[in-house]
Amino acid sequence: MQKLYVIGIGAGDPDQVTVQAIKAMNAVDVFFVVDKGAQKRELAELRARILTEHVTGPYRVVEVPDPPRERTPTDYVQTVDDWHDRRATALAVEFARTAGTGAILVWGDPALYDSTLRIVERVLAGGTRFDYQVIPGVTSVAALAARHRIVLNRVGEPVQLTTGRRLREDGLTHDAVVMLDADPDFAALPPDSQVWWGAYLGMPDETLIAGRVAEVAERIRDVRSELRARKGWIMDTYLLRRPLGRPRG
Amino acid sequence: MQKLYVIGIGAGDPDQVTVQAIKAMNAVDVFFVVDKGAQKRELAELRARILTEHVTGPYRVVEVPDPPRERTPTDYVQTVDDWHDRRATALAVEFARTAGTGAILVWGDPALYDSTLRIVERVLAGGTRFDYQVIPGVTSVAALAARHRIVLNRVGEPVQLTTGRRLREDGLTHDAVVMLDADPDFAALPPDSQVWWGAYLGMPDETLIAGRVAEVAERIRDVRSELRARKGWIMDTYLLRRPLGRPRG
Ligand SMILES: C[S@@+](CC[C@H](N)C(=O)[O-])C[C@H]1O[C@@H](n2cnc3c(N)ncnc32)[C@H](O)[C@@H]1O
Ligand SMILES: C[S@@+](CC[C@H](N)C(=O)[O-])C[C@H]1O[C@@H](n2cnc3c(N)ncnc32)[C@H](O)[C@@H]1O
Repeated sequence: MQKLYVIGIGAGDPDQVTVQAIKAMNAVDVFFVVDKGAQKRELAELRARILTEHVTGPYRVVEVPDPPRERTPTDYVQTVDDWHDRRATALAVEFARTAGTGAILVWGDPALYDSTLRIVERVLAGGTRFDYQVIPGVTSVAALAARHRIVLNRVGEPVQLTTGRRLREDGLTHDAVVMLDADPDFAALPPDSQVWWGAYLGMPDETLIAGRVAEVAERIRDVRSELRARKGWIMDTYLLRRPLGRPRG
Repeated sequence: MQKLYVIGIGAGDPDQVTVQAIKAMNAVDVFFVVDKGAQKRELAELRARILTEHVTGPYRVVEVPDPPRERTPTDYVQTVDDWHDRRATALAVEFARTAGTGAILVWGDPALYDSTLRIVERVLAGGTRFDYQVIPGVTSVAALAARHRIVLNRVGEPVQLTTGRRLREDGLTHDAVVMLDADPDFAALPPDSQVWWGAYLGMPDETLIAGRVAEVAERIRDVRSELRARKGWIMDTYLLRRPLGRPRG
C-alpha cells in the first residue's frame, strides 16, 4: 500500500461530505471498514450510500474484524491501549495485502474522540511504511449546533468538549459539549443550566430537544430510551450551558 | 426575503465546502458579505473563487458595511454587544431590500467564535421575518488537527476551545485549542507543554510548527511575525497539551 487516506465524512448526512473528501475517495482502491456494535448495519448502509453517490471508479471494500473490547474495564486507559494494539495488528495485516491507495472513512472528523489516527500511528510504529493524509470533516458537534442554530461558545468564553464519563467525574465546570455518553443523567445537573440535545443528527431519525434542564431532563430521558429501544442503538450529543451569572469554576 | 442560509464554508481551502453547502449556495439569490480588517481583500477573493467554482445560477453579492468597533474596549462584552446591534441594524436594512433567498457565508463553522448567528437573532428580534437554516462547516480546529494528523483529545480526556484572551486570564488549565489570539505568548506556558500551531490553514501560505513549547516557542514567534509583516494579516490557531503526568487542574 502506497498511501492511506483517513477521511472525515460528516456526522451522518451524506451531503455533509466535503469536496476534498469526494476527491480523495475517488483516488482510493480499497476502503477498510472497521465497524462495530449495534449500529453496524445502519451505518454501513449509510457509508455505502456515500460511496455509491460520490465515487465513480471501481473500488473494493475490505472488512477488518474488530477485536473484542472489555466493556466495563477497571483500568480504562490500559484497556483502550490494548485494544488499539490489537486493532493495529489487524489493520497491518490488511495493509500488507493491499496495493495502491487505501482509505478509512471516519464519522464526523477524525480528530474528535476517534481512535483511527492513534491506530494508524501504531501500524507505522510497527514498521509498515506508507504515506498518509487526513481529510477533516464536519463534526457531530457542528451538526448539533447547526440544527439548533446556536453558537457553541458564549461571547469570548471557552467551551469544553468532553465525554459522559468525564462529565460525571468532574461535574459541569464549564459550558461543555458532551459526547460518548451511554447514560446521560440530566437530573444531576444544576436545574438552571440549559441543554441542547440531538440524536441521530443528519439522519432520518434526527431528534432535537432544548431548554432549561429542569424543564426538559425528563423528556430527553424518555425520548432517548424510547428511540434506543426502537432502533437498538443511539448516537446523541448535547451542549450544556451553566446557569447564567454563576461564578466561574 | 423569504429565507436566509448561514453557511459554513470551511477554514480556507475551497475544497473544504460540503455538498450540503454547495446545494444551499445554488438556491441563493443574494449573498451578503460583511468583511472587515486587513485580510478583507484576500478572503473576499477566496470566497469569490468558491462561488465561481460551485454556483451555476445567477446571484448577486451585496456588501454590508461593517460598523466600526472599539479595538481595546474596557468592557469587552458590552462593546461586542453594541457592535452586534449596529451590525444587526445594517443587515436588517439589506434584508428589507431583498426578495427571495439570502445567504451569509461563514469561514469554518458558524457555531465557533462567529457572531453571524447572534446578529441574525437580533434581526429577527427586531421584527424582520424570514426562515433560516444553518449549514455546518469544517472548522479551523479540524483543519489544524488534520494537517498535523493528530487527535485533539487524549484518550477519554476533555479538550477546551478557548481564546487567546481567556488563555491569558485562566492559564493552561486544560488541553486547549486557542483561537483569536492576536499576540500568542508561548513563553508564558509550562515549558514541557506541547504545541501544534498552524497559520493560514488550507491556504497557499499554510504554515505548521509543532513540538515542545520550550523548543519551538521562539521559532513560532519569529515565523508568525515574519508572515504577518509580509502579508499584512494572519489567521492562526494552536492546540496546547499540558505536560504529561501533570495532575489535573
Ligand atoms: C466515537 S465518537 C466520534 C465523534 C466523531 N468523530 C465526530 O467528529 O463527531 C461518537 C460520539 O459522537 C457523537 N455523535 C457522532 N455522530 C452523531 C450523530 N449523527 N448524532 C448525534 N451524535 C453523534 C455521539 O456523542 C457519539 O457517542
Ligand atoms: C472569528 S474566529 C472564526 C472561527 C471559525 N468560525 C471556525 O470555525 O474556524 C477566527 C479565528 O479562527 C481561527 N482560524 C480561522 N480560520 C483559520 C485558518 N484558515 N487558519 C488558521 N486559523 C484559522 C483563528 O484562530 C482566527 O483567529
